Amino acid sequence: MATILQNYALGQWTPGSGQETEIVDAVTGELICTAFSGGLDFEAMLQYGRSKGNPALRKMTFQERGRMLKALALHLTSKKEEFYKLSYRTGATRADSWVDIEGGIGNLFAYASLRRKFPDKPFFVEDEPIGLSRGGTFIGHHILVPKEGVAVHINAYNFPVWGMLEKIAVNLLAGVPAIVKPAPITAFLTEAVVREIIASGILPEGALQLVTGTGEGILDHVTSQDVVTFTGSAKTGRMLKAHPRLIQEAVPFTMEADSLNSAVLGEDAVPGTPEFDLFIKEIRKEITSKAGQKCTAIRRALVPEKLVEDVQIALGRELAKTAIGDPQAEGVRMGAIVGREQLQKLRQQVSELAKQTPIVYGDLEKVDLIGADPQKGAFISPIVMLNQDPFRCTDTHEVEAFGPVATIMPYKTLDEAVEITKMGKGSLVSSIATADARIAQEFTYGAATHHGRILVLNQECAKESTGHGSPMPLLIHGGPGRAGGGEEMGGIRGVKHFMQRVAIQGSPTMVTAITGVYQKGAKQVEYDKHPFQKYFEELEIGETYTTHKHTVTEADIANFANVSGDHFYAHVDATSLDGTLFEGRVAHGYYILSKAAGMFVDPRKGPVLLNYGLEECRFTKPVYPGMTIGVKLTAKEKIGQEKRSEEDVAKGIVKWLVDVFDETGETVAIATILTMVKKKNQE
Amino acid sequence: MATILQNYALGQWTPGSGQETEIVDAVTGELICTAFSGGLDFEAMLQYGRSKGNPALRKMTFQERGRMLKALALHLTSKKEEFYKLSYRTGATRADSWVDIEGGIGNLFAYASLRRKFPDKPFFVEDEPIGLSRGGTFIGHHILVPKEGVAVHINAYNFPVWGMLEKIAVNLLAGVPAIVKPAPITAFLTEAVVREIIASGILPEGALQLVTGTGEGILDHVTSQDVVTFTGSAKTGRMLKAHPRLIQEAVPFTMEADSLNSAVLGEDAVPGTPEFDLFIKEIRKEITSKAGQKCTAIRRALVPEKLVEDVQIALGRELAKTAIGDPQAEGVRMGAIVGREQLQKLRQQVSELAKQTPIVYGDLEKVDLIGADPQKGAFISPIVMLNQDPFRCTDTHEVEAFGPVATIMPYKTLDEAVEITKMGKGSLVSSIATADARIAQEFTYGAATHHGRILVLNQECAKESTGHGSPMPLLIHGGPGRAGGGEEMGGIRGVKHFMQRVAIQGSPTMVTAITGVYQKGAKQVEYDKHPFQKYFEELEIGETYTTHKHTVTEADIANFANVSGDHFYAHVDATSLDGTLFEGRVAHGYYILSKAAGMFVDPRKGPVLLNYGLEECRFTKPVYPGMTIGVKLTAKEKIGQEKRSEEDVAKGIVKWLVDVFDETGETVAIATILTMVKKKNQE
Repeated sequence: MATILQNYALGQWTPGSGQETEIVDAVTGELICTAFSGGLDFEAMLQYGRSKGNPALRKMTFQERGRMLKALALHLTSKKEEFYKLSYRTGATRADSWVDIEGGIGNLFAYASLRRKFPDKPFFVEDEPIGLSRGGTFIGHHILVPKEGVAVHINAYNFPVWGMLEKIAVNLLAGVPAIVKPAPITAFLTEAVVREIIASGILPEGALQLVTGTGEGILDHVTSQDVVTFTGSAKTGRMLKAHPRLIQEAVPFTMEADSLNSAVLGEDAVPGTPEFDLFIKEIRKEITSKAGQKCTAIRRALVPEKLVEDVQIALGRELAKTAIGDPQAEGVRMGAIVGREQLQKLRQQVSELAKQTPIVYGDLEKVDLIGADPQKGAFISPIVMLNQDPFRCTDTHEVEAFGPVATIMPYKTLDEAVEITKMGKGSLVSSIATADARIAQEFTYGAATHHGRILVLNQECAKESTGHGSPMPLLIHGGPGRAGGGEEMGGIRGVKHFMQRVAIQGSPTMVTAITGVYQKGAKQVEYDKHPFQKYFEELEIGETYTTHKHTVTEADIANFANVSGDHFYAHVDATSLDGTLFEGRVAHGYYILSKAAGMFVDPRKGPVLLNYGLEECRFTKPVYPGMTIGVKLTAKEKIGQEKRSEEDVAKGIVKWLVDVFDETGETVAIATILTMVKKKNQE
Repeated sequence: MATILQNYALGQWTPGSGQETEIVDAVTGELICTAFSGGLDFEAMLQYGRSKGNPALRKMTFQERGRMLKALALHLTSKKEEFYKLSYRTGATRADSWVDIEGGIGNLFAYASLRRKFPDKPFFVEDEPIGLSRGGTFIGHHILVPKEGVAVHINAYNFPVWGMLEKIAVNLLAGVPAIVKPAPITAFLTEAVVREIIASGILPEGALQLVTGTGEGILDHVTSQDVVTFTGSAKTGRMLKAHPRLIQEAVPFTMEADSLNSAVLGEDAVPGTPEFDLFIKEIRKEITSKAGQKCTAIRRALVPEKLVEDVQIALGRELAKTAIGDPQAEGVRMGAIVGREQLQKLRQQVSELAKQTPIVYGDLEKVDLIGADPQKGAFISPIVMLNQDPFRCTDTHEVEAFGPVATIMPYKTLDEAVEITKMGKGSLVSSIATADARIAQEFTYGAATHHGRILVLNQECAKESTGHGSPMPLLIHGGPGRAGGGEEMGGIRGVKHFMQRVAIQGSPTMVTAITGVYQKGAKQVEYDKHPFQKYFEELEIGETYTTHKHTVTEADIANFANVSGDHFYAHVDATSLDGTLFEGRVAHGYYILSKAAGMFVDPRKGPVLLNYGLEECRFTKPVYPGMTIGVKLTAKEKIGQEKRSEEDVAKGIVKWLVDVFDETGETVAIATILTMVKKKNQE
């Protein structure tokens, strides 16, 4: 590692200039490196991202971007031990760093896999088309394209690796480059990861830049094609949100701020129940892991009033077992706060809180350490406070002491518990420990307005639960109000934050051309050969095959009833039809579907490998004996797939619109079927 | 109409106080009424909405809210002639008012119908569940609940009816009340509509309040549970967005600002083609309708350079045919600007623009009028300017003259046209007139980043096209950058703006209890009687029926091939299986599906009326002769439906999870089937 923290700007590693800060080891107080506040041309960096990284990424398909993320995830996994080694110096234990490092890489993997939910195109076609006219000649649809700018991520110090990777996984899948600005105090670890990323050559030039200094002026040149995200304190976040440039240019801004998250013990979860024990363990874990420096940590523990003492005793017993000290020392389960300055602030906050709510566990000044010197490292004991009157002593709901600190408070009724959680004015997450589904429901419906995530903890899920404090890649992370009002990750939702949604209007043929998905009413071209004899590359969206016809007979219905065993009265019992919607014995819906397949399938061996599914099938008109059906089979959408191995067959998914019509031309059944089709080019 | 404009606050009609403004007829200059700037207690109004309107709306289901919107739409339709009469006084022709009044009511109808895409519950379950564990005991899902606050809508003067209704349709369907603040100058028309809404008694108390004054201080008490929307000038919008209260409380804010929208004539659309004529007509329409006072109006007409003169001549000819004057006078197609103050500002803006780009049609000072006095009304002639050098004369891309004004400019290549549209720095909408799908594609992919909507105009859709200027209820309305960076309407998307999304985590059983949708792995309860013999109300989510079993034989496959006619080689031809994914002749997917139905269907007549569709079906494992299949049928989701008439059968939709498993317990096919089930209670 360099003794001077470097930036990665305009394709080069470059030291900063300006004000100097010494970054020290959270455990030993030793100098690690020096950070410089500035010296970067942010306008040039943004322009570089827009002109180099953006065009390279935006022309890639989602499938290509996803594979790129996978390669990156694999590469970083191979280097993870280097990162663990550095991470100890931030005060983190190996378990803490697992969340940061492997959790971060896990995000890359998750977004890599998410490519399967996207088309093999650079843009995304969203939801269903919208009819805008009676005659069907004018329709609407929505697509999303990558924005033309850069994602600027301003991150917090507590997760130097995850904080970067959880965000860039999303913008890279969207097709947008990033400039990452971690908090200087732990930026040495971020820098190490970025070095590996750049050295790997996996990302295109300009896809990632790094600012290790304070980043003053970083927002002065952003435009509405850029996206700014912020993770950190609510105070700084608000300042950034009001930045004149963001307002003037309508720059999308997403904020995820520390919040006063709560955990609620259900009334049913009395001592002796598994849920009581789970609640205690979860709180202990949230207080001690990362020494409580998590924006999702439990700050407020809500307990039925008659159980306050039980919780206080049980939690104290658990915390007393938690060894504190050098995170590399054997048996240590809680490390240091990130720095002595932060420790000082934390002590002040707790002292302030303690005026209203007494400390019932721990000591602000005294802590037993293993293998560490309290004079050199930034250590503190876990602190538990008790707020007997949460409706009156409201500092608990206002002051976030960013460390191993939580407050127990009593509630009388579930409604009251809901009210108390809401006094946090918007939080990232709340948990409820209960085995009672009714309690879980009521709490969730009541508290949902003020939370971005709610976890129900009970015996059924405890073994596999990822816990209160862990945001998950495919779930949203964020919350209303104090939590910043933003959303991050969330799977496809998050990817859309970095894209522009545009409503497309026009004729079905034009909307088909633009979306690449066949739209009802668009021009159909009859095939020159049977579509099942065409390779993936040869098929064109809108190509249509119209089958021969078939007059449905009573024998068909009887035979189908026999083969399937489906003797539902509407199909076979002429005496029970009175008062039903049917005029006579009606053909089975599955018969219509099966017969349609019998008509459109080409029996010969060919590029169509298999029929693997069926979507959006509706039976729109009853079919009676004597009616005649035919089928139009239209190529609707093609999604190329990569080979999983050298030996794998190169293939893609083809979705077909199956329109079964009767002798009047009316649709009797409609469905989308999914086939796997071989590619001609097997390279 | 009152001569003093009233507010509707705290359930009462109340006059304002403070500064007085006289509102005059845009055509005759006669006094209509007096508006007062203030006198309202906004904090109390917000609290009233939160404590009265919100609880009443949020406990209603989407179906109930939708029916309420439908009733409201029908009621307002019956009163529309009163609104037309008043609307003339804003300077609008009957055609202009149709967009405002019936367009607005159309939005209510559209969102009323949208209820069918929502569950019969107060909250929304979004997308698919997310697996969070290998063993499947811990999963995630997203729900959205109505926010606990009030929607505050600050609207522009140009659409006093539509501007209110397009917004409240959405927040009311979401379950959130509104305070509407129209621009004072045309608020007399909004007031008239609100009077009818309140008098109808269709909305619950507190669901709608009205502020007809300037609304100073209206944002001083909003919280993160409220939502603020703004429609109007970019300048005012930016000021509001930076409001300290919005920043401090992380209040969601959506802005839709006037923008410099463009229309592009495709290279193929030379004079003589239908697309050339459509382009000219569209520009004429956008300049003259509502006297060009539309945030979506075409301000910039981009034309291949060799066609500039043709366009100029053709457009001039069309505009010359447009009669201007008293909107009530026979033959008049363009009315007045909303007021003389606005006219004055418009003249200044055009004069400013004309320094760079000469006026080639119209006269700022002279206009021929029918039945109106240019000294009394706010009239102006349509104005067309010509910008020969759009890359250098950039005022065209900056100054929005909010009236019947547009500028023609040449482009050389399609890339250049894309660049020029983007010089508007973000617009609500752009159109391209072309018959060439390749041109439409290239333009769309290029310009999409800077637009909220793109319309492709050609002969195919022209008759039914709703036009460049019309936002549609189920498409998004908004745009990046100068257009404000917000989104309105957009169908389900828009409804979500007024709700809080929350990720739910827990065991499948808990997530089933909270979402009301059966989740894989959740507790299943075996039925005491066959599920097809249960009425809608009797069925419980998670109730499961496990069928008898069936060993698949070669005869089954042969019989099914014969009944369906599907003789695909993989099912029937033992000699062609080499190199396929199959080990032998495999059963048809549709056979498995049909046989499953044969096993789970109860043949007797009962409450299940019909099987009307199938979703998300996947064939997950090949089934060969000798394998034995069984089915688990689980009630997954119930959606109650209203009766369409007195005689209609009371019923609901039940979705069932069909899990077909083999002798090893592995799933071979999975699907969701949709049935219509009778209710026991036929009231």
